[in-house]
Amino acid sequence: MLALTLTYPATIVPRNGSCGERRKETIVLDAATATLPRTSGSVDRLVRLAETDMAGVNALITDRMQSDVPIIPALAEHLIAAGGKRLRPLLTVAAARLAGSDNDHCLKLAASVEFIHTATLLHDDVVDGSQLRRGKVAAHLIWGAAQSVLVGDFLFARAFELMVETGSMKALEILARASRVIAEGEVLQLMRSHDLNLSQAVYLEIIQAKTAELFAAASEAGAVSAGVEPDKAAALKAYGLNLGLAFQLADDALDYGGATETLGKNAGDDFREGKATLPLLLAIARSGPREAEFWERAIGRREQTEADFRRARELIIGSGALDATLDLAADYADKAKAALAVFPANDWREALESLADFAVSRRA
Amino acid sequence: MLALTLTYPATIVPRNGSCGERRKETIVLDAATATLPRTSGSVDRLVRLAETDMAGVNALITDRMQSDVPIIPALAEHLIAAGGKRLRPLLTVAAARLAGSDNDHCLKLAASVEFIHTATLLHDDVVDGSQLRRGKVAAHLIWGAAQSVLVGDFLFARAFELMVETGSMKALEILARASRVIAEGEVLQLMRSHDLNLSQAVYLEIIQAKTAELFAAASEAGAVSAGVEPDKAAALKAYGLNLGLAFQLADDALDYGGATETLGKNAGDDFREGKATLPLLLAIARSGPREAEFWERAIGRREQTEADFRRARELIIGSGALDATLDLAADYADKAKAALAVFPANDWREALESLADFAVSRRA
Repeated sequence: MLALTLTYPATIVPRNGSCGERRKETIVLDAATATLPRTSGSVDRLVRLAETDMAGVNALITDRMQSDVPIIPALAEHLIAAGGKRLRPLLTVAAARLAGSDNDHCLKLAASVEFIHTATLLHDDVVDGSQLRRGKVAAHLIWGAAQSVLVGDFLFARAFELMVETGSMKALEILARASRVIAEGEVLQLMRSHDLNLSQAVYLEIIQAKTAELFAAASEAGAVSAGVEPDKAAALKAYGLNLGLAFQLADDALDYGGATETLGKNAGDDFREGKATLPLLLAIARSGPREAEFWERAIGRREQTEADFRRARELIIGSGALDATLDLAADYADKAKAALAVFPANDWREALESLADFAVSRRA
Repeated sequence: MLALTLTYPATIVPRNGSCGERRKETIVLDAATATLPRTSGSVDRLVRLAETDMAGVNALITDRMQSDVPIIPALAEHLIAAGGKRLRPLLTVAAARLAGSDNDHCLKLAASVEFIHTATLLHDDVVDGSQLRRGKVAAHLIWGAAQSVLVGDFLFARAFELMVETGSMKALEILARASRVIAEGEVLQLMRSHDLNLSQAVYLEIIQAKTAELFAAASEAGAVSAGVEPDKAAALKAYGLNLGLAFQLADDALDYGGATETLGKNAGDDFREGKATLPLLLAIARSGPREAEFWERAIGRREQTEADFRRARELIIGSGALDATLDLAADYADKAKAALAVFPANDWREALESLADFAVSRRA
């Protein structure tokens, strides 16, 4: 474990403080977890509420990843059984139940959403050459890139077979569109992600496409399966979209603010791959000439030494870039919660509100 | 060009000769084109009949491969504009018209089918490391494997978006299932394709999954878009399935019986990759000890010299394995034609019959 405690000056503005009260103070930050206090949230409440539904979703996932070709369930299970938070299918189920669904179509749509997500992870890890996924060796390093690509294709097709079973053309439309936008986002990311002049707008466009669109589609498809009014389906879509943005921003912050042991992937992956995520882009924008030279060498030319990630982390935390990223994530989480106002306050709504806070406050 | 004329003994049984007339004769075969005479057919008749429809399909293909991310249409166009025979979308259109369709849903389904096919080609070429496709440098060698995988995903998702526009859940079911079976076939092929003990049954299972299922789905989806009776939809599905088997068997034969210039891919690709296709499997089964040693070295251990493909070709042609493969292809072509008997004889039916013969008699 990287037990690193550093002392350096940081400009801190208390979240609820007025501008008049703004003052400089020097505090000790633990670089491994350095963030300002956030509204804490939890995914546990949603997990408990959706427990029965998610047991059904998991049974469907296990059933439908089977194939007469034994390597397919073996490879798929390696990734799917490793867990992950199952956030996207949870969203589908929760959206359906909040929208008043009393049937089980949302379970099949939730399983579809998880298959689409798993397919994109398999392809992503091949594309990025990632070594770890969900704390386990990436599938392509065990079975080969070719099998990972093909099993991704299998899961993607299975997702559409499951959607067909629900008979909901609208859900198919939503998830087909999301799948296409995800692929566009991945291509855009591959083209632009090493560009240190990437604007915040294009960065947000990329994370919306590659992450937030599936969160949005997962929620909207759940809502649609409940046969809800269009404004409520749109509200759940907006919830998912903003939650997805918050989630990805926090993820990109965690890559500099967490430790490998809790992340389930290599902390510093983004740095080592030279990925232009917001914490990095903001830190670069705030650099003096000496830091600029460091970024140009380590990211621009990708000439990195062992110690560089530690330095990058210090600069990103010390410049306030990490907190600025998490502030933006918190703004999106607030928008996500606000979108739920069209629904009466109940357990499902509160659990989704807590999930939005969790997206930003989580440590892994 | 490989201008190779060889003389060797071959046992020839005239196709229409009775058993009583069977006799041995030594003939000169041009190894580059050595096959027995087959019922010749043509794709031209179908191409002419479907000209207006296919112009619509091509316009849709061009329109729907567009994206705000410019590399996507560039990469997709590289492959799609290179042509190919557009056999699968042709099947969709022809099946719809033969089944009496007077609307244009079949055009969107035909474009979907071509997108699914293009996506699988992009992924296949990455998986196999192929150098050439449709006579051009394979896309992954120009844009990289990562982009090829992601653009394949984009086209696959676009295919489902197009299907949704037709509103036909049955067509979605057919094509989602076919997409899944194709992926299973590709995985199975990757696992077993270097197995020299592969049985003919498993070989046929692989080519059915990776090729014939999409032919079947393309035809059936076209029929379904016409709102035709189930027995006629089943007949067109059977036509497509048998046509696909005939087509792939002939393709595998062409890899040993054609010249690079007319194939549009490298002749001998299958041999160099050590792929256990039927011509190879039959030749191995018919080998004496000396030939068995050659196969074990060249395919089993993949220790190949420049001259080995020529020798493999001689053995495959000389042993009658090439002709046996084409005989089997001709049997499937006959089954394909027989399936059309439920339809009245008209231009569309005759064009599809001619296509079945063409699948076997073609030189490229």
